[in-house]
Amino acid sequence: MKLDKLIGERFKEKPADSIIDSHALMVRGGYIKNVANGIFSSYAIMRRIARKIEQIIREEMDAIDGQEVLFPVVMPASLWQESGRYESVGKELLRFTDRNGSPMLLGMTHEEAAVHLVREYGQTYAKYPFMVYQIQTKFRDEARPRGGLIRVREFTMKDAYSFHTSQEDLEAYYDRCFRAYERIFARAGLPEVISVASDSGMMGGKIAHEFMLLTPVGEDSIAICRSCDYRANLEAAASIVKNDPVDALLPLAKTHTPDMMTIEDVCNYLHLPIDKACKAVVYQKAATEEYVIVFIRGDRDVNETKLRNYLREDVFPAAITENSGLKAGFLGPMDLKNAIALFDNSLDGAGNLCCGANETDYHYIGFNIERDVGRVEYYDFAKATDGGTCPKCGQASLEISRGIEVGNIFQLGDKYTKSMEMKYIDDSGATHYPIMGCYGIGVGRLAASVCEASHDEYGPIWPMPIAPWQVHLCCVRADDDSVRSIADELYEKLIAQGIETIYDDRVVSAGIMFSDADLLGVPLRLIASPRNLKDGCCEIVSRDKSINKKVNIADVVEEVMQIVQGMMNV
Amino acid sequence: MKLDKLIGERFKEKPADSIIDSHALMVRGGYIKNVANGIFSSYAIMRRIARKIEQIIREEMDAIDGQEVLFPVVMPASLWQESGRYESVGKELLRFTDRNGSPMLLGMTHEEAAVHLVREYGQTYAKYPFMVYQIQTKFRDEARPRGGLIRVREFTMKDAYSFHTSQEDLEAYYDRCFRAYERIFARAGLPEVISVASDSGMMGGKIAHEFMLLTPVGEDSIAICRSCDYRANLEAAASIVKNDPVDALLPLAKTHTPDMMTIEDVCNYLHLPIDKACKAVVYQKAATEEYVIVFIRGDRDVNETKLRNYLREDVFPAAITENSGLKAGFLGPMDLKNAIALFDNSLDGAGNLCCGANETDYHYIGFNIERDVGRVEYYDFAKATDGGTCPKCGQASLEISRGIEVGNIFQLGDKYTKSMEMKYIDDSGATHYPIMGCYGIGVGRLAASVCEASHDEYGPIWPMPIAPWQVHLCCVRADDDSVRSIADELYEKLIAQGIETIYDDRVVSAGIMFSDADLLGVPLRLIASPRNLKDGCCEIVSRDKSINKKVNIADVVEEVMQIVQGMMNV
Repeated sequence: MKLDKLIGERFKEKPADSIIDSHALMVRGGYIKNVANGIFSSYAIMRRIARKIEQIIREEMDAIDGQEVLFPVVMPASLWQESGRYESVGKELLRFTDRNGSPMLLGMTHEEAAVHLVREYGQTYAKYPFMVYQIQTKFRDEARPRGGLIRVREFTMKDAYSFHTSQEDLEAYYDRCFRAYERIFARAGLPEVISVASDSGMMGGKIAHEFMLLTPVGEDSIAICRSCDYRANLEAAASIVKNDPVDALLPLAKTHTPDMMTIEDVCNYLHLPIDKACKAVVYQKAATEEYVIVFIRGDRDVNETKLRNYLREDVFPAAITENSGLKAGFLGPMDLKNAIALFDNSLDGAGNLCCGANETDYHYIGFNIERDVGRVEYYDFAKATDGGTCPKCGQASLEISRGIEVGNIFQLGDKYTKSMEMKYIDDSGATHYPIMGCYGIGVGRLAASVCEASHDEYGPIWPMPIAPWQVHLCCVRADDDSVRSIADELYEKLIAQGIETIYDDRVVSAGIMFSDADLLGVPLRLIASPRNLKDGCCEIVSRDKSINKKVNIADVVEEVMQIVQGMMNV
Repeated sequence: MKLDKLIGERFKEKPADSIIDSHALMVRGGYIKNVANGIFSSYAIMRRIARKIEQIIREEMDAIDGQEVLFPVVMPASLWQESGRYESVGKELLRFTDRNGSPMLLGMTHEEAAVHLVREYGQTYAKYPFMVYQIQTKFRDEARPRGGLIRVREFTMKDAYSFHTSQEDLEAYYDRCFRAYERIFARAGLPEVISVASDSGMMGGKIAHEFMLLTPVGEDSIAICRSCDYRANLEAAASIVKNDPVDALLPLAKTHTPDMMTIEDVCNYLHLPIDKACKAVVYQKAATEEYVIVFIRGDRDVNETKLRNYLREDVFPAAITENSGLKAGFLGPMDLKNAIALFDNSLDGAGNLCCGANETDYHYIGFNIERDVGRVEYYDFAKATDGGTCPKCGQASLEISRGIEVGNIFQLGDKYTKSMEMKYIDDSGATHYPIMGCYGIGVGRLAASVCEASHDEYGPIWPMPIAPWQVHLCCVRADDDSVRSIADELYEKLIAQGIETIYDDRVVSAGIMFSDADLLGVPLRLIASPRNLKDGCCEIVSRDKSINKKVNIADVVEEVMQIVQGMMNV
């Protein structure tokens, strides 16, 4: 293709609303155009990248015996009512009614559709295991789309669903899919992606992993152990806190703490270290607005995902009203009314604490949970912390990093098959619910993540296997007939050899030509210019600057083909 | 792939809700599964066919300089408000609000999105012409989905949009696209598709063509001239009616026609031929419920599409109420009140007619329009009729056939660019609105149409270029080791040669094996059986029965490859 026919505009200016580089570069390079909040159109250059990523995914899914199917974007509510998710999923599930008033929804994931498709097929054990996948448009009504293609409302996703007759078989397949994901990310140019244990969220199931590209602009936090191989999303990372035993229990005493409403103020005022405080963090249940108070050690923070998973319902940070019966700033476990009290592990074994007295301007000191409120159950509601204890090796070697989630895999168990009455008969004639795994990769987010990981200030540096073109041919001084005729000839030869070539034969300055080429990010550049031709050469330069050489015109096509081939293999 | 791993169920029974063969066979063969009214999931076999059709379309669109892009499925209402279609399109446009209450819609076509994408790019004449296309999911909230994949609510469509600076350039490109469509249908196995002039409907613009597969189960009616090359959708076919001049005008006379409320009753009663009646057909405007009466010759019917186009608004057949002021059954052009009167061409030159007297139980005879109501304008509101006059050659040689629309192309003019303020500057510095063409093909409908055109009672007969697999290898008596080892070896060799092979090595009867193969419709079947192997042969049989031969085992792979190659070329 000739560059001057490529539809899309290129800009010098960074778009005002972009906060990460991939977003800015993809808008500046004419890859995408915003249509509405979190909704984009793709120009040809983006579509070419996406199609290559889709094909890599397709090949790897086929290689693990997946069968490509297609589920609908628009589904009837009745299908999601079967699983119970029509009610349980929040506003990110876009619900509407059709012309006949039937409740419908836009697919954000397709567990229900997958079970619907194979429910009759999978009635005998001999059919198992099997996996179906699709590459299809999804819609998730995100409250806060951001970062260009990183978090959008409409996106193309590969989602796969596997079905099994035993946990062992699921685990074996889960592992195959895990390896396939590693190959996909490596082939797409992100070999540095790591897997982390994750929270399974609204999917259900227990074991889940996310594939993360570590980058400071990522929106996920990940706990990584420096001493062992433990890696988990902060939402799923166990928080390990040990308390030194106290020598003797101090007597409980109520103390006046006028206007001391934050835990820092109280501890300062009382000359106590912050880890000697029993902090109250107040939430409300989304459904009922009932108050839920998590008591946690003063130096720790609540992980809301853990709280939601414990409660099995949605919560939000509380608004404490006048008539709630709660004394904001002075909440404590003793004589607490009008709220559910929960205790974080970080308080287990902690003694001689300060805590709110449920009375304005008063706290207790010398508070000891077991003595003063009786035996309570402790759970893990806390965020793991940088420098904290690794739940696997026990070393104080956790680091918290940021990452972009580029893929996820879940062991779902029988949540969907049971609720949707999908059963099979085993070889003894008994019926069971099959168990499922599901496996997702967002195509656009993966492209944007590659761009995040591989770019410079001038543009993306696309890896050869997903690059929009393999070679960017620049004819510098296209108004010089001798240069143009050589460049035209090279273009024809490259095309004839099946090399995907974008050809810039515009009569523009070399500066404009190269800055446009930088924005397109094609990995290999071939430059025909009067200066090179004087030596009978062309210049071959890789976008990442690792290659920069002059090659005789007669050898150029062969040389380019070899370099392209080398860069395709990963 | 091995057949026993193919996900999907095959049935002997015709599904109760199927009224056409392609629907029945695609359900019976495990191609599709109904999810909701007009919404289907596709199994792998259907997805394979669809992907091949998509690739054929992609190649032909690329060959006419199209650039593949991607528009969103979900669009903001504001985009369609720019063109005015948010208000003008009916309930088939699915409108809803997102979590923030913003009005959104599901894309059923993407003219607005196309203009939005290229509005800035196309600001100077030098960029023109250009074309963008996508292959994407669409949703159209059809009142009456029917016929399996023929008329659905959710479907995959290729839609293309071209932009031009002159009508001549649009026409030249329109013609290129026309030829590309002919190649697409030929490559997909439907060389018999014909093009017909069509109504441009809600798209706007004047010149439009549909590509039709003629079949009795089609839902479109098409007027085809036996004498010349005139072909048009009935909605667009001009109705030509000539009236013999009357010798002398009879006097107007009111006559008692008690309870004669249909045109047939009246003509019988008055002993007049039906073409001597001035019939009143009553509609109401959808927006205002205002009455619109089309007067038309008694032997003709109104084409509602023509009426809608004339009025530029939607109408529906009237409900004539007591207080409408209209005398149902006795409506005529004289002294008509409370309604807009329109006159069809079929009344032009007709004389001495009968017509309603706008008085219960009375008609006029000897009615002559010009004399009795004055000069009126005549328009074409009538359906063309079988045996009617061809508007092109003037012969009474029209035939009305049924067809399935498998593609359409429109010359849109500047409807969208003007309303959405897309402008370019010409070489003299003046600004203009570019003009557009748009071009659609439904992927699933095309697959179903091929099935309609090419099947027998046992299953589809897929043309090689879109067949789910190229070869169906049957191992008859897979429990016989000598047969199985030969068949296994053939399978490996075919795969190694890149032949797409589905391998049935189940231990089932030949009857079950062949009836399943018939349902899959793979064009070439290779049969290894004890009987054939005794002769050192395999059997090669084509699904359409044109090939049926025994080939030495040593030559089978080469022979199959040659036949496949021959069947791929169209």
